[in-house]
Amino acid sequence: MARDEGVNAMTEQGTLFGVGVGPGDPKLMTIKAGEVIRDADVLAYPVNGSGESHARSIAAPIIEAGASELPIHLPMKVEREPAQNAYDNAVIAIKRHLDEGRDVAYLCVGDPLFYGSFMYLAARLGNTHPIEIVPGITSLSACAALTRTPLAGRNDILSVIPATLGEAAMATALERADTAAIIKVGRHFQKVRRLLYSLGIADKAIVIENGTADGERITPLEDIAEETHPYFSTILLRRNRVT
Amino acid sequence: MARDEGVNAMTEQGTLFGVGVGPGDPKLMTIKAGEVIRDADVLAYPVNGSGESHARSIAAPIIEAGASELPIHLPMKVEREPAQNAYDNAVIAIKRHLDEGRDVAYLCVGDPLFYGSFMYLAARLGNTHPIEIVPGITSLSACAALTRTPLAGRNDILSVIPATLGEAAMATALERADTAAIIKVGRHFQKVRRLLYSLGIADKAIVIENGTADGERITPLEDIAEETHPYFSTILLRRNRVT
Repeated sequence: MARDEGVNAMTEQGTLFGVGVGPGDPKLMTIKAGEVIRDADVLAYPVNGSGESHARSIAAPIIEAGASELPIHLPMKVEREPAQNAYDNAVIAIKRHLDEGRDVAYLCVGDPLFYGSFMYLAARLGNTHPIEIVPGITSLSACAALTRTPLAGRNDILSVIPATLGEAAMATALERADTAAIIKVGRHFQKVRRLLYSLGIADKAIVIENGTADGERITPLEDIAEETHPYFSTILLRRNRVT
Repeated sequence: MARDEGVNAMTEQGTLFGVGVGPGDPKLMTIKAGEVIRDADVLAYPVNGSGESHARSIAAPIIEAGASELPIHLPMKVEREPAQNAYDNAVIAIKRHLDEGRDVAYLCVGDPLFYGSFMYLAARLGNTHPIEIVPGITSLSACAALTRTPLAGRNDILSVIPATLGEAAMATALERADTAAIIKVGRHFQKVRRLLYSLGIADKAIVIENGTADGERITPLEDIAEETHPYFSTILLRRNRVT
């Protein structure tokens, strides 16, 4: 036991931090996120097919020149298998750093455990390596702030509904919700628009494009021309009058 | 019109900021919250019957000596009428500062628009005074981080369910949810426990008491003795295996 402790002390594992960098405005990072990013030995973050990383761009103002960086290529596919292979591969590189005693901060847009990719890395490393989560401001809180639309109050049940779901499942969820937010709207915009009209709640819907980022735009659903396809958007349904 | 502008310039209204200070750890405030708190002319915050303010205590490390403070007495009652009277009264004092050109930062535990009192102040002042919201880390994100329990992923519908609801409404919501968080557990703990056992999902429930604050404790529901009454708690339901 004492001998084991000696070995551990010599090759002490690094910690994997899942760091929420918030919705886009660098000032919506927490003080703690800033500290962890500055202190980490390695900064990891997801990059898309074009090599761009939204998470890194949010943290950019506080990333020091010469920081050791580990871009992780993750497919934006909905299908599970390619994603799982990508997570398996990502874990190999992260694990090497941790095993050699280096702390790795993995940057996550929004909050690491709210519809993010970090949970899949944590599931692969959580039983063997120390993991710590720094929560972040979700896109939902940011959209509510921008539009001054309460997400929920008093006894409301709040439903967060991904637009990637089928129309029937979304309709059921929307009919039951006191208050709702529709996320991951992307290429599903026309389906969601159709649905909100057919449920008679289009007049309560506010579309937030590119919340807290360049090209930010807030528009009531009814004011969006039918042929328009807002891409990076979240839709909030206004609650009844707040008193 | 020109004359009005002149008058407005002389007595320019202050802005009311709704500032989320996050769940408890002062380091989970955002950079922006810190700036707004330091720059505000007046710091307002809700206080309870004993004159204590959780919101103020979170922000305390960055409140400068001599700051102008405006404690707002809000009843913790569920009934709407006393709460509405309290909001009406609170608005009188805040409005005076705004009308005299002073910016007021109203400190909110968690996020200002997620089950908070700020929306009721904003509803009373939003049509006549400039309002800005600084979103905050919710207790939900903090509890997820502490327990490393993903709130939601992929196509999950996340339901946030206040324990203040009746048992039947809660049961319906829980049966339908892919993943759920139960908030405002407080004195409703035994009702919630009973319900989770009767729905056969007690083994998925994790109880977080005093998340990110003193006395923080994380316990699987099944390990909590039947006579125990955790008070400030949130309950997360674990999702199925993350892959």
